Amino acid sequence: MGEKEISQAVIRRMPRYYRYLGELLDAGVERISSNDLSRRMNVTASQIRQDLNNFGGFGQQGYGYNVKYLYEEIGKILGLDQTHNIIVIGAGNLGQALANYVKFEKFGFVIIGLFDINPVLEQKLVRGIRIYMLDELEAFCKENRVDIAALTLPKKKADAVANRLVDNGVHAIWNFAHVDLELLNKDVVVENVHLSDSLMQLSYNIVKNRDD
Amino acid sequence: MGEKEISQAVIRRMPRYYRYLGELLDAGVERISSNDLSRRMNVTASQIRQDLNNFGGFGQQGYGYNVKYLYEEIGKILGLDQTHNIIVIGAGNLGQALANYVKFEKFGFVIIGLFDINPVLEQKLVRGIRIYMLDELEAFCKENRVDIAALTLPKKKADAVANRLVDNGVHAIWNFAHVDLELLNKDVVVENVHLSDSLMQLSYNIVKNRDD
Repeated sequence: MGEKEISQAVIRRMPRYYRYLGELLDAGVERISSNDLSRRMNVTASQIRQDLNNFGGFGQQGYGYNVKYLYEEIGKILGLDQTHNIIVIGAGNLGQALANYVKFEKFGFVIIGLFDINPVLEQKLVRGIRIYMLDELEAFCKENRVDIAALTLPKKKADAVANRLVDNGVHAIWNFAHVDLELLNKDVVVENVHLSDSLMQLSYNIVKNRDD
Repeated sequence: MGEKEISQAVIRRMPRYYRYLGELLDAGVERISSNDLSRRMNVTASQIRQDLNNFGGFGQQGYGYNVKYLYEEIGKILGLDQTHNIIVIGAGNLGQALANYVKFEKFGFVIIGLFDINPVLEQKLVRGIRIYMLDELEAFCKENRVDIAALTLPKKKADAVANRLVDNGVHAIWNFAHVDLELLNKDVVVENVHLSDSLMQLSYNIVKNRDD
Protein backbone atom coordinates (compact mmCIF):
# COMPACT_ATOMS: atom_id res chain seq x y z
CA MET A 1 0.00 0.00 0.00
CA GLY A 2 3.03 2.28 0.13
CA GLU A 3 1.92 3.43 3.57
CA LYS A 4 5.48 4.28 4.51
CA GLU A 5 5.42 7.41 2.43
CA ILE A 6 2.33 8.86 4.08
CA SER A 7 3.37 12.01 5.87
CA GLN A 8 2.69 12.57 9.55
CA ALA A 9 0.76 15.69 8.49
CA VAL A 10 -1.80 13.46 6.78
CA ILE A 11 -1.86 11.11 9.78
CA ARG A 12 -2.44 14.08 12.08
CA ARG A 13 -5.61 14.90 10.15
CA MET A 14 -7.05 11.36 10.17
CA PRO A 15 -8.27 11.37 13.82
CA ARG A 16 -10.17 14.53 13.00
CA TYR A 17 -11.94 12.87 10.04
CA TYR A 18 -12.67 9.95 12.33
CA ARG A 19 -14.14 12.27 14.93
CA TYR A 20 -16.41 14.07 12.45
CA LEU A 21 -17.56 10.84 10.81
CA GLY A 22 -18.36 9.44 14.27
CA GLU A 23 -20.54 12.48 14.93
CA LEU A 24 -22.31 12.07 11.58
CA LEU A 25 -22.87 8.40 12.35
CA ASP A 26 -24.32 9.27 15.77
CA ALA A 27 -26.61 11.75 14.01
CA GLY A 28 -27.85 9.00 11.67
CA VAL A 29 -26.26 10.37 8.49
CA GLU A 30 -25.65 7.53 6.02
CA ARG A 31 -23.71 9.23 3.27
CA ILE A 32 -22.01 12.56 2.66
CA SER A 33 -20.44 14.30 -0.29
CA SER A 34 -16.87 15.49 0.02
CA ASN A 35 -18.23 19.04 -0.42
CA ASP A 36 -20.53 18.71 2.59
CA LEU A 37 -17.80 17.08 4.67
CA SER A 38 -15.48 19.87 3.56
CA ARG A 39 -17.86 22.63 4.68
CA ARG A 40 -18.42 20.95 8.03
CA MET A 41 -14.73 20.37 8.71
CA ASN A 42 -13.49 23.63 7.27
CA VAL A 43 -11.02 21.80 5.01
CA THR A 44 -11.11 21.97 1.21
CA ALA A 45 -12.85 19.08 -0.57
CA SER A 46 -9.71 18.50 -2.59
CA GLN A 47 -7.67 18.17 0.62
CA ILE A 48 -10.11 15.52 1.85
CA ARG A 49 -9.94 13.60 -1.42
CA GLN A 50 -6.14 13.85 -1.46
CA ASP A 51 -5.82 12.69 2.14
CA LEU A 52 -8.13 9.72 1.64
CA ASN A 53 -6.53 8.79 -1.67
CA ASN A 54 -3.36 8.01 0.31
CA PHE A 55 -5.22 4.97 1.52
CA GLY A 56 -6.89 4.14 -1.77
CA GLY A 57 -9.84 6.52 -1.79
CA PHE A 58 -13.24 5.31 -0.49
CA GLY A 59 -15.60 7.63 -2.30
CA GLN A 60 -17.79 6.88 -5.29
CA GLN A 61 -18.25 9.42 -8.04
CA GLY A 62 -21.71 10.96 -7.68
CA TYR A 63 -22.46 9.15 -4.45
CA GLY A 64 -19.98 10.62 -2.01
CA TYR A 65 -18.83 8.73 1.03
CA ASN A 66 -20.66 6.01 2.92
CA VAL A 67 -20.28 7.36 6.45
CA LYS A 68 -20.24 4.05 8.33
CA TYR A 69 -17.85 2.42 5.87
CA LEU A 70 -15.45 5.36 5.86
CA TYR A 71 -15.60 5.62 9.66
CA GLU A 72 -14.68 1.97 10.01
CA GLU A 73 -11.96 2.09 7.39
CA ILE A 74 -10.29 5.10 8.96
CA GLY A 75 -10.62 3.32 12.30
CA LYS A 76 -8.69 0.39 10.85
CA ILE A 77 -6.03 2.68 9.38
CA LEU A 78 -5.59 4.22 12.83
CA GLY A 79 -5.36 0.79 14.45
CA LEU A 80 -8.60 1.27 16.37
CA ASP A 81 -9.91 -2.16 15.43
CA GLN A 82 -7.47 -3.57 18.00
CA THR A 83 -7.19 -3.18 21.74
CA HIS A 84 -4.20 -1.27 23.07
CA ASN A 85 -3.25 -1.86 26.70
CA ILE A 86 -1.82 1.22 28.38
CA ILE A 87 0.06 1.72 31.62
CA VAL A 88 0.51 5.17 33.09
CA ILE A 89 3.80 6.00 34.79
CA GLY A 90 3.15 8.70 37.33
CA ALA A 91 -0.12 8.58 39.27
CA GLY A 92 -0.35 12.29 40.06
CA ASN A 93 -3.22 14.47 38.88
CA LEU A 94 -2.46 14.10 35.20
CA GLY A 95 -1.96 10.33 35.43
CA GLN A 96 -5.21 10.00 37.33
CA ALA A 97 -6.97 12.27 34.84
CA LEU A 98 -5.92 9.93 32.03
CA ALA A 99 -7.12 6.90 34.02
CA ASN A 100 -10.48 8.58 34.57
CA TYR A 101 -10.96 9.36 30.90
CA VAL A 102 -13.49 6.67 29.88
CA LYS A 103 -13.55 8.01 26.32
CA PHE A 104 -10.26 6.32 25.49
CA GLU A 105 -11.82 2.87 26.02
CA LYS A 106 -14.41 3.57 23.35
CA PHE A 107 -11.49 3.67 20.91
CA GLY A 108 -9.87 0.50 22.22
CA PHE A 109 -7.32 2.12 24.53
CA VAL A 110 -7.55 0.38 27.89
CA ILE A 111 -5.55 1.58 30.88
CA ILE A 112 -4.58 -1.51 32.86
CA GLY A 113 -2.38 -0.04 35.57
CA LEU A 114 -0.76 3.06 37.02
CA PHE A 115 2.71 3.23 38.56
CA ASP A 116 4.22 5.62 41.04
CA ILE A 117 6.99 5.79 43.61
CA ASN A 118 4.91 7.45 46.31
CA PRO A 119 4.10 4.72 48.89
CA VAL A 120 0.97 6.59 49.95
CA LEU A 121 -0.57 5.66 46.60
CA GLU A 122 0.29 1.94 46.80
CA GLN A 123 -2.61 -0.33 45.84
CA LYS A 124 -5.03 2.58 45.60
CA LEU A 125 -7.58 2.37 42.82
CA VAL A 126 -8.50 5.00 40.20
CA ARG A 127 -11.80 4.07 38.57
CA GLY A 128 -11.01 0.47 39.52
CA ILE A 129 -7.51 0.63 38.04
CA ARG A 130 -4.77 -0.24 40.52
CA ILE A 131 -1.75 1.89 41.33
CA TYR A 132 1.43 -0.19 41.54
CA MET A 133 4.83 0.77 42.86
CA LEU A 134 7.44 1.37 40.16
CA ASP A 135 9.57 -1.55 41.36
CA GLU A 136 6.73 -3.87 40.35
CA LEU A 137 7.06 -2.74 36.71
CA GLU A 138 9.20 -5.65 35.50
CA ALA A 139 6.91 -8.29 37.00
CA PHE A 140 3.85 -6.50 35.66
CA CYS A 141 5.24 -6.34 32.13
CA LYS A 142 5.95 -10.08 32.22
CA GLU A 143 2.42 -10.93 33.26
CA ASN A 144 0.55 -8.43 31.08
CA ARG A 145 0.69 -7.29 27.50
CA VAL A 146 1.60 -3.61 27.60
CA ASP A 147 1.28 -1.81 24.27
CA ILE A 148 1.69 1.79 25.34
CA ALA A 149 3.20 3.55 28.34
CA ALA A 150 2.02 7.06 29.12
CA LEU A 151 4.71 9.07 30.93
CA THR A 152 3.37 11.69 33.31
CA LEU A 153 6.46 12.14 35.46
CA PRO A 154 9.10 14.82 36.00
CA LYS A 155 11.39 15.36 33.03
CA LYS A 156 14.53 14.41 34.96
CA LYS A 157 13.24 10.87 35.40
CA ALA A 158 11.67 10.49 31.97
CA ASP A 159 14.67 9.16 30.01
CA ALA A 160 15.61 6.51 32.57
CA VAL A 161 12.06 5.24 32.95
CA ALA A 162 11.47 5.30 29.18
CA ASN A 163 14.54 3.18 28.52
CA ARG A 164 13.53 0.81 31.32
CA LEU A 165 10.11 0.43 29.69
CA VAL A 166 11.68 -0.35 26.35
CA ASP A 167 13.87 -3.00 28.03
CA ASN A 168 10.64 -4.54 29.25
CA GLY A 169 9.21 -4.76 25.79
CA VAL A 170 7.12 -1.59 25.66
CA HIS A 171 7.63 -0.10 22.21
CA ALA A 172 5.27 2.86 22.24
CA ILE A 173 5.44 5.86 24.53
CA TRP A 174 2.91 8.61 25.01
CA ASN A 175 5.11 11.26 26.53
CA PHE A 176 3.72 14.08 28.68
CA ALA A 177 7.08 14.90 30.30
CA HIS A 178 8.42 18.30 29.28
CA VAL A 179 11.40 16.87 27.42
CA ASP A 180 12.17 15.12 24.13
CA LEU A 181 13.03 11.57 25.15
CA GLU A 182 16.48 10.21 24.35
CA LEU A 183 15.91 6.55 23.64
CA LEU A 184 18.70 4.07 23.09
CA ASN A 185 16.41 1.84 21.04
CA LYS A 186 15.38 3.74 17.92
CA ASP A 187 12.61 1.28 17.09
CA VAL A 188 10.27 2.86 19.61
CA VAL A 189 7.28 4.96 18.63
CA VAL A 190 6.90 8.18 20.61
CA GLU A 191 4.06 10.66 20.61
CA ASN A 192 4.61 13.82 22.61
CA VAL A 193 2.01 15.96 24.35
CA HIS A 194 4.02 18.99 25.41
CA LEU A 195 1.46 21.10 27.26
CA SER A 196 3.84 24.02 27.81
CA ASP A 197 4.68 24.11 24.09
CA SER A 198 1.00 24.24 23.25
CA LEU A 199 0.46 27.06 25.72
CA MET A 200 3.37 28.98 24.19
CA GLN A 201 1.90 28.59 20.72
CA LEU A 202 -1.36 29.98 22.05
CA SER A 203 0.45 32.89 23.65
CA TYR A 204 2.27 33.67 20.38
CA ASN A 205 -1.08 33.85 18.61
CA ILE A 206 -2.54 36.06 21.35
CA VAL A 207 0.23 38.62 20.99
CA LYS A 208 0.10 38.44 17.19
CA ASN A 209 -3.70 38.84 17.22
CA ARG A 210 -3.40 41.88 19.47
CA ASP A 211 -0.81 43.50 17.18
CA ASP A 212 -2.76 42.89 13.96
CA MET B 1 8.31 42.56 10.71
CA GLY B 2 5.99 40.70 8.36
CA GLU B 3 5.09 38.33 11.17
CA LYS B 4 1.73 37.62 9.62
CA GLU B 5 3.22 35.35 7.02
CA ILE B 6 5.02 33.11 9.50
CA SER B 7 3.50 29.67 9.24
CA GLN B 8 2.11 27.82 12.24
CA ALA B 9 4.61 25.05 11.45
CA VAL B 10 7.44 27.47 12.30
CA ILE B 11 5.60 28.65 15.40
CA ARG B 12 5.13 25.05 16.49
CA ARG B 13 8.90 24.60 16.50
CA MET B 14 9.70 27.76 18.49
CA PRO B 15 8.74 26.41 21.94
CA ARG B 16 11.09 23.51 21.30
CA TYR B 17 13.99 25.90 20.55
CA TYR B 18 13.05 27.79 23.69
CA ARG B 19 13.09 24.58 25.72
CA TYR B 20 16.52 23.50 24.45
CA LEU B 21 18.02 26.95 24.91
CA GLY B 22 16.66 27.00 28.46
CA GLU B 23 18.42 23.73 29.16
CA LEU B 24 21.68 25.06 27.70
CA LEU B 25 21.33 28.18 29.82
CA ASP B 26 20.78 26.08 32.95
CA ALA B 27 23.89 24.11 32.03
CA GLY B 28 25.92 27.32 31.84
CA VAL B 29 26.47 27.27 28.06
CA GLU B 30 27.02 30.82 26.77
CA ARG B 31 27.09 30.34 23.04
CA ILE B 32 26.36 27.60 20.55
CA SER B 33 26.85 27.11 16.82
CA SER B 34 23.84 26.27 14.70
CA ASN B 35 25.59 22.95 13.94
CA ASP B 36 25.81 22.01 17.62
CA LEU B 37 22.24 23.12 18.25
CA SER B 38 21.21 21.12 15.19
CA ARG B 39 22.86 17.91 16.45
CA ARG B 40 21.32 18.31 19.86
CA MET B 41 17.83 19.02 18.56
CA ASN B 42 17.92 16.57 15.69
CA VAL B 43 16.92 19.30 13.23
CA THR B 44 19.10 20.39 10.31
CA ALA B 45 21.21 23.50 10.85
CA SER B 46 19.64 25.07 7.76
CA GLN B 47 16.16 24.51 9.22
CA ILE B 48 17.23 26.31 12.39
CA ARG B 49 18.69 29.22 10.44
CA GLN B 50 15.59 29.40 8.24
CA ASP B 51 13.23 29.33 11.21
CA LEU B 52 15.11 32.04 13.08
CA ASN B 53 15.50 34.18 9.97
CA ASN B 54 11.72 34.59 10.01
CA PHE B 55 12.28 36.83 12.99
CA GLY B 56 15.39 38.55 11.70
CA GLY B 57 18.14 36.02 12.41
CA PHE B 58 20.04 36.40 15.74
CA GLY B 59 23.24 34.56 14.84
CA GLN B 60 26.62 36.01 13.99
CA GLN B 61 28.79 34.49 11.29
CA GLY B 62 31.63 32.56 12.97
CA TYR B 63 30.26 33.13 16.46
CA GLY B 64 27.02 31.19 16.48
CA TYR B 65 24.21 32.08 18.82
CA ASN B 66 24.42 33.79 22.17
CA VAL B 67 22.31 31.39 24.23
CA LYS B 68 20.90 33.86 26.74
CA TYR B 69 20.08 36.47 24.10
CA LEU B 70 18.41 33.95 21.78
CA TYR B 71 16.48 32.42 24.70
CA GLU B 72 15.16 35.83 25.69
CA GLU B 73 14.34 36.88 22.14
CA ILE B 74 12.40 33.69 21.42
CA GLY B 75 10.67 34.19 24.75
CA LYS B 76 9.56 37.64 23.57
CA ILE B 77 8.38 36.25 20.22
CA LEU B 78 6.30 33.70 22.11
CA GLY B 79 4.88 36.42 24.37
CA LEU B 80 6.57 34.97 27.45
CA ASP B 81 7.82 38.38 28.59
CA GLN B 82 4.23 39.09 29.69
CA THR B 83 2.00 37.52 32.28
CA HIS B 84 -1.03 35.59 31.02
CA ASN B 85 -3.86 35.02 33.46
CA ILE B 86 -5.65 31.73 32.96
CA ILE B 87 -8.92 30.37 34.24
CA VAL B 88 -9.74 26.69 33.99
CA ILE B 89 -13.32 25.69 33.21
CA GLY B 90 -13.88 22.22 34.62
CA ALA B 91 -12.24 21.36 37.94
CA GLY B 92 -12.08 17.60 37.42
CA ASN B 93 -8.83 15.66 37.37
CA LEU B 94 -7.51 17.31 34.26
CA GLY B 95 -8.44 20.82 35.41
CA GLN B 96 -6.80 20.17 38.76
CA ALA B 97 -3.75 18.68 37.06
CA LEU B 98 -3.34 21.93 35.10
CA ALA B 99 -3.74 23.97 38.31
CA ASN B 100 -1.06 21.88 40.01
CA TYR B 101 1.43 22.33 37.20
CA VAL B 102 3.81 24.91 38.70
CA LYS B 103 5.93 24.84 35.58
CA PHE B 104 3.48 27.06 33.69
CA GLU B 105 4.12 29.92 36.09
CA LYS B 106 7.80 29.91 35.24
CA PHE B 107 6.74 30.92 31.71
CA GLY B 108 4.34 33.62 32.89
CA PHE B 109 1.11 31.60 32.74
CA VAL B 110 -0.71 32.09 36.01
CA ILE B 111 -3.89 30.18 36.80
CA ILE B 112 -6.09 32.51 38.82
CA GLY B 113 -9.23 30.44 39.22
CA LEU B 114 -11.05 27.21 38.40
CA PHE B 115 -14.75 26.91 37.61
CA ASP B 116 -17.12 24.00 37.90
CA ILE B 117 -20.82 23.27 38.29
CA ASN B 118 -20.38 20.60 40.96
CA PRO B 119 -21.42 22.23 44.28
CA VAL B 120 -19.19 19.80 46.21
CA LEU B 121 -16.18 21.63 44.79
CA GLU B 122 -17.38 25.13 45.69
CA GLN B 123 -14.70 27.29 47.32
CA LYS B 124 -12.25 24.39 47.49
CA LEU B 125 -8.63 25.24 46.82
CA VAL B 126 -6.19 23.56 44.44
CA ARG B 127 -2.64 24.64 45.29
CA GLY B 128 -4.18 27.75 46.79
CA ILE B 129 -6.27 28.47 43.68
CA ARG B 130 -9.97 28.73 44.36
CA ILE B 131 -12.71 26.78 42.64
CA TYR B 132 -15.69 29.00 41.75
CA MET B 133 -19.12 28.01 40.57
CA LEU B 134 -19.75 28.61 36.87
CA ASP B 135 -22.49 31.17 37.59
CA GLU B 136 -19.80 33.38 39.16
CA LEU B 137 -17.99 33.57 35.79
CA GLU B 138 -19.42 36.92 34.67
CA ALA B 139 -18.58 38.65 37.94
CA PHE B 140 -15.12 37.11 38.01
CA CYS B 141 -14.33 38.29 34.48
CA LYS B 142 -15.38 41.83 35.42
CA GLU B 143 -13.09 41.91 38.43
CA ASN B 144 -10.09 40.10 36.96
CA ARG B 145 -8.14 40.25 33.75
CA VAL B 146 -8.57 36.86 32.10
CA ASP B 147 -6.28 36.26 29.12
CA ILE B 148 -6.85 32.56 28.50
CA ALA B 149 -9.56 30.07 29.40
CA ALA B 150 -8.64 26.39 29.48
CA LEU B 151 -11.65 24.19 28.72
CA THR B 152 -11.58 20.81 30.42
CA LEU B 153 -15.24 19.97 30.22
CA PRO B 154 -17.47 17.56 28.28
CA LYS B 155 -17.69 18.29 24.57
CA LYS B 156 -21.45 18.85 24.66
CA LYS B 157 -20.98 21.88 26.87
CA ALA B 158 -17.84 23.22 25.23
CA ASP B 159 -19.40 25.43 22.53
CA ALA B 160 -21.85 27.15 24.84
CA VAL B 161 -19.25 27.86 27.51
CA ALA B 162 -16.69 28.99 24.93
CA ASN B 163 -19.10 31.52 23.44
CA ARG B 164 -20.03 32.70 26.94
CA LEU B 165 -16.34 33.26 27.69
CA VAL B 166 -15.92 35.26 24.51
CA ASP B 167 -18.92 37.40 25.49
CA ASN B 168 -17.07 38.12 28.70
CA GLY B 169 -14.00 39.32 26.88
CA VAL B 170 -11.86 36.18 26.90
CA HIS B 171 -10.24 35.99 23.48
CA ALA B 172 -8.00 32.95 23.80
CA ILE B 173 -9.09 29.41 24.47
CA TRP B 174 -6.96 26.41 25.32
CA ASN B 175 -9.34 23.64 24.39
CA PHE B 176 -9.08 20.15 25.87
CA ALA B 177 -12.66 19.18 24.99
CA HIS B 178 -12.85 16.48 22.33
CA VAL B 179 -14.44 18.75 19.74
CA ASP B 180 -13.49 21.57 17.39
CA LEU B 181 -15.14 24.63 18.87
CA GLU B 182 -17.69 26.53 16.85
CA LEU B 183 -17.22 30.13 17.83
CA LEU B 184 -19.48 32.93 16.71
CA ASN B 185 -16.70 35.47 17.11
CA LYS B 186 -13.92 34.62 14.66
CA ASP B 187 -11.45 36.91 16.38
CA VAL B 188 -10.72 34.36 19.05
CA VAL B 189 -7.47 32.40 19.24
CA VAL B 190 -7.91 28.69 19.90
CA GLU B 191 -5.28 26.08 20.64
CA ASN B 192 -6.50 22.50 20.81
CA VAL B 193 -5.09 19.66 22.86
CA HIS B 194 -7.02 16.67 21.54
CA LEU B 195 -5.68 13.81 23.66
CA SER B 196 -7.65 11.14 21.79
CA ASP B 197 -6.31 12.38 18.46
CA SER B 198 -2.78 12.16 19.78
CA LEU B 199 -3.39 8.63 21.04
CA MET B 200 -4.77 7.64 17.62
CA GLN B 201 -1.70 9.02 15.89
CA LEU B 202 0.43 6.94 18.24
CA SER B 203 -1.66 3.87 17.50
CA TYR B 204 -1.32 4.41 13.74
CA ASN B 205 2.46 4.48 14.15
CA ILE B 206 2.41 1.35 16.32
CA VAL B 207 0.56 -0.63 13.66
CA LYS B 208 2.74 0.77 10.88
CA ASN B 209 5.92 0.01 12.86
CA ARG B 210 4.74 -3.56 13.40
CA ASP B 211 4.02 -4.04 9.67
CA ASP B 212 7.35 -2.63 8.48
